[in-house]
Amino acid sequence: MKQLLLGTRNLGKIEEIKHLLAEVEGLTLLTFSECPFSEVDEIGETFLENALLKVRAVSCETGFGVLAEDAGLEVAALGGEPGVRSARYSGVPVDHVRNNELLLKRLEGVEDRRARFVTVAALRLPDGEVFVTTGILPGRIATAPAGGGGFGYDPLFLPDGGTRTLAELGIEEKNRISHRMQALRRMRPILQDLADV
Amino acid sequence: MKQLLLGTRNLGKIEEIKHLLAEVEGLTLLTFSECPFSEVDEIGETFLENALLKVRAVSCETGFGVLAEDAGLEVAALGGEPGVRSARYSGVPVDHVRNNELLLKRLEGVEDRRARFVTVAALRLPDGEVFVTTGILPGRIATAPAGGGGFGYDPLFLPDGGTRTLAELGIEEKNRISHRMQALRRMRPILQDLADV
Repeated sequence: MKQLLLGTRNLGKIEEIKHLLAEVEGLTLLTFSECPFSEVDEIGETFLENALLKVRAVSCETGFGVLAEDAGLEVAALGGEPGVRSARYSGVPVDHVRNNELLLKRLEGVEDRRARFVTVAALRLPDGEVFVTTGILPGRIATAPAGGGGFGYDPLFLPDGGTRTLAELGIEEKNRISHRMQALRRMRPILQDLADV
Repeated sequence: MKQLLLGTRNLGKIEEIKHLLAEVEGLTLLTFSECPFSEVDEIGETFLENALLKVRAVSCETGFGVLAEDAGLEVAALGGEPGVRSARYSGVPVDHVRNNELLLKRLEGVEDRRARFVTVAALRLPDGEVFVTTGILPGRIATAPAGGGGFGYDPLFLPDGGTRTLAELGIEEKNRISHRMQALRRMRPILQDLADV
């Protein structure tokens, strides 16, 4: 496999993935601008189901090998919510500020603030072969937002071992520990393997 | 993660996996003799579904991280059959000789003999994280069985680029190219990652 289509329309994610996979030799990354594909309904009940839905739909539609991911926040005291509903927690269209407000409200007076960010990355080849990797960033939910970087729940998320939220970390520091980076880094030797064939 | 349970009762597979994962430092492999688990019904419609069924059931029952795989033979002219029914193609209990006879009968007079062995390996951690890797060995179906090594459809399977069936290859040569080994080799950096944490 020498060409791989990124199954996302998110320009920020595309940049991150391109950066991380730059050192995979012999692999050309395509995006939706070179090879358009339809929107995929993320109706799965787990990140794994959604990631598999996305790569199956896009690779069947385009005939390319496809890499995609699904990610979200799981809060222990909320039984894993918002989970697959992280982006649309407070409704659609997606509104990060309202999502953060809703999360704080649900956790009012709750002492157990444990939470984790989860990414499930999936790769599907045109012949149906599937690969899956995961990344987890454990942490806890702050009592008030802080920081202007990142996106989504980053202003409320305190990674374990630190006192600053993800939105307060520099992009390099965030990428070093992030759930998405962990999942993609684990995909790298698999992609190199496939690019070598 | 320092301990990993192998989700198979097949002693041959256990030996192969132990051999291949020996170089993952800091990881102890457990088997059903140290940590018993119930039989899992393989009712999935794809290798991926079956592999995920197995690791989910065994890891939920035992609380350990679990590695398991599902594998089989896909024949192009039979639309991918026997596929997930490879072992019980001619009925239960599993009878490899009758399976081979049935496959030859179905392919009588068929010119397109293309086939491939597929393995999907799945790893599930106690917290629900899932990893999946795949291995494929392309080849074709011979017109008569040959060789006394291997098992299953090996006497009928001619790997691409050679003239001997898998059952005629030595165990080392088979392991070098086998679908199972490819899938497990791709799991190795992921396991090393997890063992390091």
